[in-house]
Amino acid sequence: MITSALHSATEPSSTQPRVFLQAGRDRRVVQGHPWVYSNEIRMDPETKALPAGTVATLHRVDGKALGVGTFNPHALIAFRIFDRDSTVRLDEPFFLGRLRRALTLRDRLFEKPFYRLVHAEADGLPGMIADRFGDVVVLQMNTAGMDSLAPTVLAALHELFSPADIVFRNDARARAQEGLADTDMDSDAGESRPVGVEEGGRTFAADLASGQKTGWYYDQRDSRALVAPLARGGRMLDAYCYAGGFGISAACEGASDVVCIDSSQSALDLARKAADANGVGGICTFTKAVAFSELERLGKTGERFRVVVADPPAFVKSRKDLNAGLRGYRKLTRLAAALVEPGGFLFVASCSHNVTSEAFSGEVAKGMAATERSGRIVRAGGPGLDHPVHPHLPETAYLKTLLLQVD
Amino acid sequence: MITSALHSATEPSSTQPRVFLQAGRDRRVVQGHPWVYSNEIRMDPETKALPAGTVATLHRVDGKALGVGTFNPHALIAFRIFDRDSTVRLDEPFFLGRLRRALTLRDRLFEKPFYRLVHAEADGLPGMIADRFGDVVVLQMNTAGMDSLAPTVLAALHELFSPADIVFRNDARARAQEGLADTDMDSDAGESRPVGVEEGGRTFAADLASGQKTGWYYDQRDSRALVAPLARGGRMLDAYCYAGGFGISAACEGASDVVCIDSSQSALDLARKAADANGVGGICTFTKAVAFSELERLGKTGERFRVVVADPPAFVKSRKDLNAGLRGYRKLTRLAAALVEPGGFLFVASCSHNVTSEAFSGEVAKGMAATERSGRIVRAGGPGLDHPVHPHLPETAYLKTLLLQVD
Repeated sequence: MITSALHSATEPSSTQPRVFLQAGRDRRVVQGHPWVYSNEIRMDPETKALPAGTVATLHRVDGKALGVGTFNPHALIAFRIFDRDSTVRLDEPFFLGRLRRALTLRDRLFEKPFYRLVHAEADGLPGMIADRFGDVVVLQMNTAGMDSLAPTVLAALHELFSPADIVFRNDARARAQEGLADTDMDSDAGESRPVGVEEGGRTFAADLASGQKTGWYYDQRDSRALVAPLARGGRMLDAYCYAGGFGISAACEGASDVVCIDSSQSALDLARKAADANGVGGICTFTKAVAFSELERLGKTGERFRVVVADPPAFVKSRKDLNAGLRGYRKLTRLAAALVEPGGFLFVASCSHNVTSEAFSGEVAKGMAATERSGRIVRAGGPGLDHPVHPHLPETAYLKTLLLQVD
Repeated sequence: MITSALHSATEPSSTQPRVFLQAGRDRRVVQGHPWVYSNEIRMDPETKALPAGTVATLHRVDGKALGVGTFNPHALIAFRIFDRDSTVRLDEPFFLGRLRRALTLRDRLFEKPFYRLVHAEADGLPGMIADRFGDVVVLQMNTAGMDSLAPTVLAALHELFSPADIVFRNDARARAQEGLADTDMDSDAGESRPVGVEEGGRTFAADLASGQKTGWYYDQRDSRALVAPLARGGRMLDAYCYAGGFGISAACEGASDVVCIDSSQSALDLARKAADANGVGGICTFTKAVAFSELERLGKTGERFRVVVADPPAFVKSRKDLNAGLRGYRKLTRLAAALVEPGGFLFVASCSHNVTSEAFSGEVAKGMAATERSGRIVRAGGPGLDHPVHPHLPETAYLKTLLLQVD
């Protein structure tokens, strides 16, 4: 391993590389922030030559150690701090401790082992996402650092609770920012990975290999529990149904009939499977369509629903999409709100990192105004409890949800 | 009544005064915003002479009607729009309709008649707050407009569900901004108004006459339901217990013992009453103390708790208090987090209108950093579903809550 040239005699010797902050850039780190940007690092030739994902200690210019973490000289977020004690080793016992802590929290919050087990920095595991489906775990290693540590993490995960299977679903966009290849390293070569999800006393079907993200959106669990009962006795429209989380939950809660829309046939197949598994196939219809066009068509035919759910994929994937994406949320609100019966409810969500909650609620308000119908925000929310946020990274709370009643 | 000089022949004649926007200031109103600021109004002598709280129609400079509402020439928010249809009369049937809509929403969301029934603009009733305690209603009329309309509103409320009693607890600060006197107009002259509150299957005691605000903080209902079970099997500290909402709920959910702190003896008496009523008096202690000092003292004695709740009154009552108030939230977090056992939970809240959620979570992060303990935000939340928000007034969502796990 490489040791930085500026080894200080006052620090214990270490075989780990040492990365130095530029003078005067330690304040945020000392206050507990886990990220260091590349322009805050003293990028001398040796530091710049460190391989992406190197485990290193972080130091003030005078040599004082500030923590241990992973370093990527090519990434905007160049250093990610795993622990503020720089003598900590990022070995199997370390990861076992972090994973056990994450597991203990989830087991305290949830009755069944279906949840996001690890949510990156918030769980002290920067760059790592793990979703648990019973005895199957889906992993995303989204930084070079976590990618290089994967073997150690896997060993710790096996020691923790011996998952029957571990599936990698790495996030191509995040990995590209870290200079990583977009290769899903599945632990075997299957093309479809069906798995059952238990939520709210119901069974859903997810596909861990070909589905979206890790296969299931645990982040909307609380929203589904909130919204589904509101459809009781009325019609319900799930405009981006994916595997049927909202729609089938509403059917189970007593909606008179549920219309599920998705542009993907495989998503609709999952939703249909969930409807049948929960005995509500008879009151659900499944329409393969683009949501905007279908909402517009339904509006023209005069169809109305007690509850409309519009939980689309991210409209703003990068900053350059911001204006178009914001217009998208406004239009979606306008089209969806028009389909709500008087006194009914509209649930809209944005999972775009680049859209603030203020911007999102602003567009939703404009969309509502365009329908010339009044209403009220009954709940402005975020993700469920298994998606914690690092206290210094409130901006990583990407999911914004709004439940409105429409007059 | 007074009719504005600029009566336009293209508008239906009306006995109501007409208030005009300045040229080019109609955009926000047309988009659905319910407020007009005084500097957006054409303040000619006749307009300026209108009595505070006058019911009036709002017009564009060319005479086009934009809505009906109440006008106060002396208030910063000079015009509050009740309906965008200017032909609507603000009479008893109008208020009955609005109240019925608000009641229908709450009855859909809650099993028992204990909730905020009216939340001002969000329920189409600007300036009015109504909390319901079974067959008793507590009212705040916080604008000159709503104050002048009170007799009509009361008649509608009686027609809606004949409350056994209606108690006025007007908000002195809000009323002062509207030039209104700080007189609580109780419907009879009693000094204490004890009432039972049912929440989460438990009974609490509130005092509608001498208690804080309207007597009970319905806005924290969901937070209490979330936090109380986390204390199961462990110790719980409720640092600003008031009537015992958090503390007694935790005791009922299986906390081993609960320490309730408040600086007010009458608050502690209410909390003790609730503890006894729910059969948990034996595991609760009640300490009359200033929270900051008592938290500091407990920290020194080495006491630790599974769950610490710090839900203080607003630290920032006006903008000039902002910096001192922010430091207060930071210090409160530092003192309270230090008392949490490893793996336990800290719940902190701010009900300061003038503190944004970003500023609040920033101070909480700094307070956490000052304890040198890591942790994670498990839930960043707001008020319960009976505190809806007008889509164009997201800033009126005054309550910010953070639930953190502390390592």
